[in-house]
Amino acid sequence: MTDKSAQPRVMIFDTTLRDGEQSPGATMTHEEKLEIASLLDEMGVDIIEAGFPIASEGDFAAVTEISKLSKNSTICGLARANFKDIDRCWEAVRHARSPRIHTFIGTSPLHRAIPNLTMDEMAQRIHDTVTHARNLCDNVQWSPMDATRTEHDYLCRVVEIAIKAGASTINIPDTVGYTAPRESADLIRMLLERVPGADGVIFATHCHNDLGMATANALAAVDAGARQIECTINGLGERAGNTALEEVVMAMKVRNDIMPYRTGIDTTKIMNLSRRVSAVSGFAVQFNKAIVGKNAFLHESGIHQDGVLKNVETFEIMRPEDIGLHQKNLTMGKHSGRAALRSKMSELGFDLADNQLNDLFVRFKALADRKKEVYDDDLIALVADEATQDAHDFLQVKRLRVICGTEGPQEAELTLSVDGVEHATDATGDGPVDAAFNAVRAIFPHEAHLQLYQVHAVTAGTDAQATVSIRLEEDGRIATGQSADTDTIVASVKAYVNALNRLIVRRQKTAPDADVKGVNYKDA
Amino acid sequence: MTDKSAQPRVMIFDTTLRDGEQSPGATMTHEEKLEIASLLDEMGVDIIEAGFPIASEGDFAAVTEISKLSKNSTICGLARANFKDIDRCWEAVRHARSPRIHTFIGTSPLHRAIPNLTMDEMAQRIHDTVTHARNLCDNVQWSPMDATRTEHDYLCRVVEIAIKAGASTINIPDTVGYTAPRESADLIRMLLERVPGADGVIFATHCHNDLGMATANALAAVDAGARQIECTINGLGERAGNTALEEVVMAMKVRNDIMPYRTGIDTTKIMNLSRRVSAVSGFAVQFNKAIVGKNAFLHESGIHQDGVLKNVETFEIMRPEDIGLHQKNLTMGKHSGRAALRSKMSELGFDLADNQLNDLFVRFKALADRKKEVYDDDLIALVADEATQDAHDFLQVKRLRVICGTEGPQEAELTLSVDGVEHATDATGDGPVDAAFNAVRAIFPHEAHLQLYQVHAVTAGTDAQATVSIRLEEDGRIATGQSADTDTIVASVKAYVNALNRLIVRRQKTAPDADVKGVNYKDA
Repeated sequence: MTDKSAQPRVMIFDTTLRDGEQSPGATMTHEEKLEIASLLDEMGVDIIEAGFPIASEGDFAAVTEISKLSKNSTICGLARANFKDIDRCWEAVRHARSPRIHTFIGTSPLHRAIPNLTMDEMAQRIHDTVTHARNLCDNVQWSPMDATRTEHDYLCRVVEIAIKAGASTINIPDTVGYTAPRESADLIRMLLERVPGADGVIFATHCHNDLGMATANALAAVDAGARQIECTINGLGERAGNTALEEVVMAMKVRNDIMPYRTGIDTTKIMNLSRRVSAVSGFAVQFNKAIVGKNAFLHESGIHQDGVLKNVETFEIMRPEDIGLHQKNLTMGKHSGRAALRSKMSELGFDLADNQLNDLFVRFKALADRKKEVYDDDLIALVADEATQDAHDFLQVKRLRVICGTEGPQEAELTLSVDGVEHATDATGDGPVDAAFNAVRAIFPHEAHLQLYQVHAVTAGTDAQATVSIRLEEDGRIATGQSADTDTIVASVKAYVNALNRLIVRRQKTAPDADVKGVNYKDA
Repeated sequence: MTDKSAQPRVMIFDTTLRDGEQSPGATMTHEEKLEIASLLDEMGVDIIEAGFPIASEGDFAAVTEISKLSKNSTICGLARANFKDIDRCWEAVRHARSPRIHTFIGTSPLHRAIPNLTMDEMAQRIHDTVTHARNLCDNVQWSPMDATRTEHDYLCRVVEIAIKAGASTINIPDTVGYTAPRESADLIRMLLERVPGADGVIFATHCHNDLGMATANALAAVDAGARQIECTINGLGERAGNTALEEVVMAMKVRNDIMPYRTGIDTTKIMNLSRRVSAVSGFAVQFNKAIVGKNAFLHESGIHQDGVLKNVETFEIMRPEDIGLHQKNLTMGKHSGRAALRSKMSELGFDLADNQLNDLFVRFKALADRKKEVYDDDLIALVADEATQDAHDFLQVKRLRVICGTEGPQEAELTLSVDGVEHATDATGDGPVDAAFNAVRAIFPHEAHLQLYQVHAVTAGTDAQATVSIRLEEDGRIATGQSADTDTIVASVKAYVNALNRLIVRRQKTAPDADVKGVNYKDA
């Protein structure tokens, strides 16, 4: 092994909370955003893009709070190329120990056509907005959106303008996931060679995975001189998502011989973050996902098993422990005490307050009475479930009884508390889930449409807890809900009610995001 | 657009049924393998690797039957570097219109150590086994397993030996998913430059996705001169899987300007194949999977939506129709007739025999009575469900009634037919699924362990059918089961019984696969 401390440092810029949360259906609550930000900070992410402050009150509040709570990471907010966006962004990030404003504008011919700006008009706007941002904050990042489809000469021209106006990081986004590794490298190399002042700033790469090459494209850009990778946990993001943090970080670690770069990431925290982001976004990770998929370290065929038994390196290029995956995790039983639970939760990355621990302990005991073996994943599901329910929730499930089977009709008896008042009803439906959801609708009428219903067992065994993820849509607003229970139908109704509670919160906002996020480049 | 017919042709070698089916838990039934092979053949896959004939009687039977049914594709079987494997492979593939034998041996230092062969001994074995294969079949492919970790000089030496012995395709596997694009290209380029006779054979690339770069690595190899890509649908395969067929094919189509190669794939059949492979393997595709994920063509943020409305190319580099994804697919209602159903199924890629259509029609009518709108995905789920149940099944679910809810205990009454004789029982459990599975165990005692339980809604809406996927493990044998029903609990029990039926079939085989797949390189 070479001396890694002498290797160039690549900054890891995580945008799970901005580009990731922008995925249809991945909306997170305020508390979930704070939790993910805190885990990213602890893992050693250099820059956390915490949101798009002007997009909604929720985004503004989250970026503000994350800025206040940040310990090590730089906190960044996104802003379009107008003063109002930039001012709002600064209002949120200025509380951070190390704040950054990230402003962008689409520079490709297709994107220039939307605000209908000439090349010169756009160049002027870039100069003005970056200067404005730099007057507020000494750490400014600028992005020419759709850079990979922008004319090279114009790209060089606007990058130079942004550098002269004070941007210290220039991010080159492959917004449509269009590029390939050699092209990605060539683009960075061209900018470094042609743009005056390029050697005084950090170039960043921001790739999307539409053609399955986001990881390779990001690493190729680093090879050409980029020193910041923009990425998300689990590759979350619009369409096919962004570069996956876990893939670029582990690739540079495993193949440090041909990619001699270091990052500040504590890789043993990757698995826990992957699980948390999957839970709060409702985006399951497929079994055959690189690094964090359930099968990533599993071997089936006789030939491979034999090789692994003889020498683990025969088929494994990294160890499960490197990402914090501990396979033998049978741990807690009904006789385990409060101290053991606290120590276990801390090992799993959860530092709970006393009241949180007490709540969890009660639920852990109830689960241990019903389930022979309580695994790490069971405890993680309990914490997640706890986080989705709140004594202040507008809707709360009090009692449910369901009858179902091959001979129908399926029936549900439900008692639901609505704003503190209990209501009971019976309903039928096509299947127990439909019957129970019909009962919710009978008590609390609403127009929300079920877009997604997913169940997976938390651990193996027929007595496992089931985690249910639900996505509801109402007038363009999307909310997700989760719940875990050994009774799948109970978990389903709790997840449905959890999603409804979130929709109700979103209804109370003045305007749906789409209005605010709409394209209006005029300064104000 | 340039004249694509003048571009070099890249052969698509699909190994979903061999390397894909080798993923822990992805075991397919004989009928499922035939169905997938037939769909791959119709889609224009050049070579189908149908299995590893000596690994089990099941693999042998599947490769034999697929060979007999093949219409356009070359059918390939896998064999280790010994005469017995190769003979068995030939026995299976010789029925094909165009057969191929694929033989391999691990050439890296770690892999040479397993059979404990010197470089010279291994070279001799390669000469002998390729010669033997070539005497049986004029289409022989040879692979140095773990090529990316094999010494370059030795790799050149053994590739030359294989070419001289008659191999017409040389496949370069990145067995551990270790390489990066430039390295992948350099390796192919080196072989083409240094190995005598290299210009007379086709070089293939076989990549794994452990570091998230399988697609880029395969395309980089093509850029360097490889003319065959080995891949699987959905990137199915051991650990993080193989190169995804849909990604490399669509990348060469979308970026034909920088990757001027053509394939024989009808890309409009990709989506249907992706759905079928996901269903039969039990491997769900994540929302943010490139090309075939549910979100791959979805846009959330206001900026993106606005851009897409103004010009679809602003954020989309390919159209959903290109992969056979038709978003507006509300189609069939309770008044639709048999002819409409036949025509719809044919459009979806299913050519049903009259008796299959009649069965489906009865189930379609029953569903249409319960569900307002019947979508394409509902019909696909009905066909899939039909395929998982057979009047000859050893175990059959006759009646189920379940009571569950917040106040327990959860109870199930089940009538199960065991080898034609009906048995009824009651059972309790932790949740309705556990209660129902306990009832199955009470009637038909078994030791199988539930490894995986997953539910997803086939379409949106609370009255949607739920598809349940189950994976059971018993003494190292793994079997999966699926079922779809508007009642989640009914679907769960049917999926469980479906998996049990498959385990029972596997029990009847003489030996578990692991014994036969074990490493024994001695000729026999």
